[in-house]
Formats: sequence, C-alpha cells, structure tokens
Amino acid sequence: MPSIRDVAEEAGVSVATVSLVLNEKGSISPETRQRVLEVVDRLGYIRSSRARSLRDNQSRVIGYAWDKQRSEFNPVLDSFLYAILRNAEAHGRNVLVFSAEDSTDVAIYRELAAAKRVDGFVLSHTVQDDPRFVYLHEAGVPFVAFGRSNTPLDDEVFWVDVDGQSGTHAATEHLIKHGHQQIGFVGWPAGSVSGDSRWLGYMRAMRECGYTPPAEYDIRVMNHVREGYEAGQRLLDLDSPPTAVVCVSDVLAAGVMRACAAAGVRAAITGFDDTPIAEFMHPSLTSLRQPVNRAAEILIEMLVAQLDGQPISSRQVLIQPELVIRGSSTI
Amino acid sequence: MPSIRDVAEEAGVSVATVSLVLNEKGSISPETRQRVLEVVDRLGYIRSSRARSLRDNQSRVIGYAWDKQRSEFNPVLDSFLYAILRNAEAHGRNVLVFSAEDSTDVAIYRELAAAKRVDGFVLSHTVQDDPRFVYLHEAGVPFVAFGRSNTPLDDEVFWVDVDGQSGTHAATEHLIKHGHQQIGFVGWPAGSVSGDSRWLGYMRAMRECGYTPPAEYDIRVMNHVREGYEAGQRLLDLDSPPTAVVCVSDVLAAGVMRACAAAGVRAAITGFDDTPIAEFMHPSLTSLRQPVNRAAEILIEMLVAQLDGQPISSRQVLIQPELVIRGSSTI
Repeated sequence: MPSIRDVAEEAGVSVATVSLVLNEKGSISPETRQRVLEVVDRLGYIRSSRARSLRDNQSRVIGYAWDKQRSEFNPVLDSFLYAILRNAEAHGRNVLVFSAEDSTDVAIYRELAAAKRVDGFVLSHTVQDDPRFVYLHEAGVPFVAFGRSNTPLDDEVFWVDVDGQSGTHAATEHLIKHGHQQIGFVGWPAGSVSGDSRWLGYMRAMRECGYTPPAEYDIRVMNHVREGYEAGQRLLDLDSPPTAVVCVSDVLAAGVMRACAAAGVRAAITGFDDTPIAEFMHPSLTSLRQPVNRAAEILIEMLVAQLDGQPISSRQVLIQPELVIRGSSTI
Repeated sequence: MPSIRDVAEEAGVSVATVSLVLNEKGSISPETRQRVLEVVDRLGYIRSSRARSLRDNQSRVIGYAWDKQRSEFNPVLDSFLYAILRNAEAHGRNVLVFSAEDSTDVAIYRELAAAKRVDGFVLSHTVQDDPRFVYLHEAGVPFVAFGRSNTPLDDEVFWVDVDGQSGTHAATEHLIKHGHQQIGFVGWPAGSVSGDSRWLGYMRAMRECGYTPPAEYDIRVMNHVREGYEAGQRLLDLDSPPTAVVCVSDVLAAGVMRACAAAGVRAAITGFDDTPIAEFMHPSLTSLRQPVNRAAEILIEMLVAQLDGQPISSRQVLIQPELVIRGSSTI
C-alpha cells in the first residue's frame, strides 16, 4: 500500500503539502493540488481507516447484536440500530452487526473481541442478571448497554436506559385523570427488566390514588398481537372488566384494541414505544415515545470515550419517555 | 497469536487431534479432549475468522448501505437487512453496515473496498442508471443487488428483484374482478425503478380490460403518509372520483385510506410490501408480500460464490410477490 511519503515523492512536494491537499486546508495552488490528486489516484493511495487502525491498534469497528426474532415487530430497536450507526460514523467508526438468537450468549462476544474484529460492543435487549455484563466487565472488553441488568454491576458499567416506570406511571395517571379507576395491565412475563419496571409504574400510580387492582387485571403474555388479543378477551370476559388498559407495548395494545373492537366494547388503551403503527391504528394509539436517537448519541459518546481513553462525564443515564396522547385513551 | 501447532505441541497431541476436538468430530478420549481444551483456554487460541481471512486474503465481511432516511418507515428493508445478516453468517461472513444519506454516492463504496474492510457489497435502493452498478462493475468489486438499474448492465451483474409489475398487475386484476373500472394509482415520482415497474403492472391490467384511466387518476408523491393523504384528497375531489386505488406502498395506502375515512367515502384500496401495519389497519390492508428472506438467501449465495470463485447457477433472479387479500379491497 503506498504511503503518504510515496505520494509526496512522486508529486515532488512535501508530505505536509499532500496532507493539506487531502484535508482541503491551507492555500495550495490549483496546479499543485491537481498534481497531488493525480498521483493519489495513480498510486491508489488510501487515507484508510485501516491505516489509522494499524496506528492505534483499534479496528474502529463497534459490534452490535441484533436480536430481531425476539418479537415479531420491533421498529424501536430498528431505529436504535440506525441511530447507533449514524453516531458511530460521526466518530469515525463502522458498525459490525451480528445476529443473536439468544442475545445473552457470550460466545459470539468473546470470539469477536478476541479476534479483534471489534473494539467494543453496544448491547440491547438486556435481561435481569445479564451474563454479557458479567463476561465483558470481567474480560475488560469496552461496552455500553441500552438498558440495565438489575444487579450491583449496573453501578460500575456504562448504560443508558429509558425510564419505563415513569412512562407507565404517566400513562396510568393520564387514564385516572380521565375518570378511570378499573385499569388493567397487559405486560410481559416477570423477569424482563423493562417489563417489570413498566409494571411498577402502573402499580405506583394506582396505589397513589388508593386503587388496588384485582389480581385478574394483571395479564402476562409474550409480545405478539395475537397474545394481546387473547389477553384483551380475558379482561373483557371478567365479571367486572376494566374500563382502561395499560399495555407494555404497542404490539400488545394493538391486540387488546382488536379484542375490544370485536366485542363491540370501548375501552381506553395505552401502548408503549410509539411505533409507527400507533399513528396508523383506529383510533390512533396513545403511547410512550422512546428517545432512541438521544440514547444512541450518549451511548456512542460513552463507548468512544472508553476506547480513546477520554474522560466520561456520566456512566449511567436515565432518560424520560414522552407520553404522546392520541384518540385511544380519551374515548 | 498462538497457532494450532502451539496448542498441539503444548498438549502433546497431533494437530489433527486438536482439529478433531475443536470441530467435535472423531472419537477422542474424554481425557485428551479435556487436555486439549485446557491448553486452548490457557494459550488463548482462537479459531478466528481473522486467522482464516489472513489465509485467503478475504476480510470475510460484507458491506451493506442502510438508507433508512429514504422513507419514514421501511420495515421491508429492515427485515431484508436482518435476513442478509443471517444468511451471511451461515456462510461464515459478518456484515458491516454503513449509513448512506445518498445511497448512490460511490465514494463510501470505493473507500471500504480499497481499505479491504469488506470483500463485496449487497446493494438495495437501486435507481435508474445506478452509478454504483457502473463503478463497482468497472472496479471489479464483487457485488449483488436487491433490485435493478434498468440499463444493459443489468444483464452482466448479479441481482435479485421482486417482480413489482406482476404484483400491481395482480392487485389491479383483483380490483377489476370485484367490479371496479375507475381505478386510480398513487405512486412515486417517475425514475424509481421499482415505482415505474409497479405503475406498468397497473396500466397493463387496466388496458387488458380495455380501461384507459384519465390522467388525473395517476398521482405521484413521496413515500409519506401525509402525502398519501393529500393524494387521496385530490382523487376524492375529482368530478368523477375512482372507486378503487392501487398504491405503490402500504405507507401511501395508509394515507389514502385515512383521506377516505375523513371524507366518509368507502373505496377499495391495495398497498405494496405487506408491512406489519397492513394487518393493524382498519380495515386491514390488502397488500403484496415481498419474499425478502428468499431474496436475501439467493443474493448471499451469489455473492459468496463470486468471492470464493465457485460456479453460479443464475445471475439474475426475478421472484414473485404474493397478493395477500384483506378487508380493504373487498368492501
């Protein structure tokens, strides 16, 4: 691979001049500029990130496990990945994406890090006691996580999380303000860090108003429209069905809404994620918007600071979701 | 980096034995197996793709430009990317994803290929006279495309495309069979390869039945719900509005459906892509499903065959979309 010196020699100029031309700085005559660029082209000189990476022993690649099979439809994480990409590139990094059927299996992380294919990782889909937190922390592999593991390790590692508890708290309060007292909850099975936190927000808002929802108002299913539909049917079949339902996701809310429509019942419903389907539904869905662009921006800053040995202002950041009120909750 | 020879020597076995243990093949005694694995662990021996790539001078990385800003919501290409990832991994390759605000700019392709960060590319979002086809073909960089460029180069390069013309032809025929004659079209501005082909399918079906839609039945807008809404309004404002509308995407169909709902008009509507929103809409949307998994599978096979110098059975593959009939077109 030709070096900048080869280019300078061939063009009969100094290395500094080549550098100025390539960086479009300084006042270089058009003729010199032209000559240097011709030599660059002819020799095939590349100001490559690879050359840079040979210099500082970084691959300049960030790894991200995309666990798309976890739910049938997860546009929030699709957008998050794109935001990670954009922010990584703004810091001169590329993103290597790998699939993970079980996103908590550490083997692929070990292999990519050991082979120096990547310098560090961005994690998502975190779970309680996430084994990736333990492995990467112990192995000294730089990483940041979108989400927490709910262990003391959370105080030592880098993460950004959306405050799900505060989100469902706001949604539940909003329903209470619209006159509802019998409010049901459709969530995921216990053990999901974000799911449990969203349940807590609902319960806290209910208790603050002195409401104690009966056990049968709390339904746990997997994140599929059909399961949301069945959860909705179970709620509607109760002797005293809820008049409103807080759902942990737009996908489940879509199922519950369909069950209500099929039964000819109007119930106030809220979702979570503010996916594009929220706006398309009928009525359009009240939901909680996750600021994924902001999350990605902070995460990449944190990771790049670790990689480059720069100071980091904060290691753990909790950002607030925004309640977007639409027709589904105010009927 | 320790080699397989180092492991064999340290464990007092042959290289073949180490290989058998690592590949979990052959009948190796549990003690030998245990000893070899201990040495592998102690020396930190990695059967890395990096070692493999040093051997055959391939980076074993495939590049993909993700142009997510092109439309507000494109779950088909999100799923396509995931399918690319899964198929690439099945062939021992990783995927490096980069963003592209203008996906036809060749600079980033040139840089990644020259720096040997990737061995080849998967293209999507192809356009008429796609400059990437010309550049990559001339530079001899292996690539495959999901879509065509509508130039003679299409006969020389590798692509898989979904037959959009046959898709909208089927949708239009379906509407005609349900008694419609005044059928409008909401598409993208001329020049998009897939958009033009979808328009042709509509026109062909109309002409086959002797219908000649008036010019004002053909509306071209960008791929946003709001623009679909305005297109729907324009159609409904006509003295003789269409009773059915063929749309080039689910996103535009969602806008047209909303315009109909707002005007209290029932019109039969079809979309394209069969995105998750199709099923969530009210009524649910008739649409054309793109077999993205199959497309990704063929594309990666084609690309890997190029990289490994293997024979390739076909260079150009056109696959058929599937008309999924739901409530929106049969009202």
